[in-house]
Amino acid sequence: MNIQLALDRLTIEQAIAVAAPVAAYIDWMEVGTSLIKEFGMDSVKAVKHAYPNHMIVADAKTFDNAVYEFEMCYAAGADIATVMGVAPQVTVEACMNVAAKLGKRVMIDLLHTTEAQMKQLTAYSEAILCLHVSKDQQEMHGSTQSGSGSQVPDCLMEGGNRMLAFAGGITKDSIQKLIPFQPYTVIIGSAITQAENPIFAAKAFFEFKKGETCYE
Amino acid sequence: MNIQLALDRLTIEQAIAVAAPVAAYIDWMEVGTSLIKEFGMDSVKAVKHAYPNHMIVADAKTFDNAVYEFEMCYAAGADIATVMGVAPQVTVEACMNVAAKLGKRVMIDLLHTTEAQMKQLTAYSEAILCLHVSKDQQEMHGSTQSGSGSQVPDCLMEGGNRMLAFAGGITKDSIQKLIPFQPYTVIIGSAITQAENPIFAAKAFFEFKKGETCYE
Repeated sequence: MNIQLALDRLTIEQAIAVAAPVAAYIDWMEVGTSLIKEFGMDSVKAVKHAYPNHMIVADAKTFDNAVYEFEMCYAAGADIATVMGVAPQVTVEACMNVAAKLGKRVMIDLLHTTEAQMKQLTAYSEAILCLHVSKDQQEMHGSTQSGSGSQVPDCLMEGGNRMLAFAGGITKDSIQKLIPFQPYTVIIGSAITQAENPIFAAKAFFEFKKGETCYE
Repeated sequence: MNIQLALDRLTIEQAIAVAAPVAAYIDWMEVGTSLIKEFGMDSVKAVKHAYPNHMIVADAKTFDNAVYEFEMCYAAGADIATVMGVAPQVTVEACMNVAAKLGKRVMIDLLHTTEAQMKQLTAYSEAILCLHVSKDQQEMHGSTQSGSGSQVPDCLMEGGNRMLAFAGGITKDSIQKLIPFQPYTVIIGSAITQAENPIFAAKAFFEFKKGETCYE
């Protein structure tokens, strides 16, 4: 299991500073969409420069112009970039092709996809499929459905050997409920960055991970 | 009818330079998604600074974190920002609310929405609804379906008084076919920016517009 730290709603300097004390417990550093749209590729470059030994995820949320956007993210230092699963299939396909050509990886964000779309997307066996309860959805529901794991459609669990990521308000408590779904990556944001003691929080996720079977 | 010039796949300096000779024929300047993701809000600020008397459209393609992203775009100088119609409804709703609060406007990008979703989105009577054939779709089909206007669902034409925008490979020829749909805004990119003579091209759209009924 990989722990991905989502860095969002911060300046580049704040993001790097927030990650510093917990970096040892983190596998993947995510440059959040808000950083990319506010500061552009400088945000990806800076986080990669600060954490050259971490996998860097550029949460580009690409919806069009796939080749341009993905080449841009990878050139800036991203190892993984994200595309929306609900985008036209030609766009997802183009992202997969750019990644394959450059030896990089793709995370497909399943936010607001239908089950039929999810099933179609499972064909991309090289991609990480991310079940995502969005920030706006969390604020509306005041809950973390992703953490409950109750919404993992069967089509994502069938056939095995699938790389699933989970995002959206996951806490030290709710992560327990994800175990049956064998998460490949768990994306943590405020449960670490806004914790009273971020080091303590990050270490708890790290210890949890050590206790789990490694699905890599 | 408004003519919106889409500035994409350019540096900030190139975008401002490309727009300069045609600015007199353009109503709305669009800071494309590629500029926002590559250079962040500096791109919006710079285009607003260069063209203070134009409406500035930030093509943020927001899919989550609506309040943060839309406040950011408007603060940078955007008069209009875009949200994906296929995003969760709570996100579209939040964008509408931010715009109303700040006296700004929203364009809802209908790319890859179903007819049922489009119909739902027509409830946002203050929003501009953008029928969009994406760059990736254009490259796949090698055509400009948006320009043909053949894909305007009935639900967008019923009831009248709707602000429709059209985007995706529109040319001086294909724009003719949009007349029956009474476009509120027509979004032009490469037909001007990559024209042999951009001034000539922009002027042709401007003349076309003058000949049309004004739907504002």
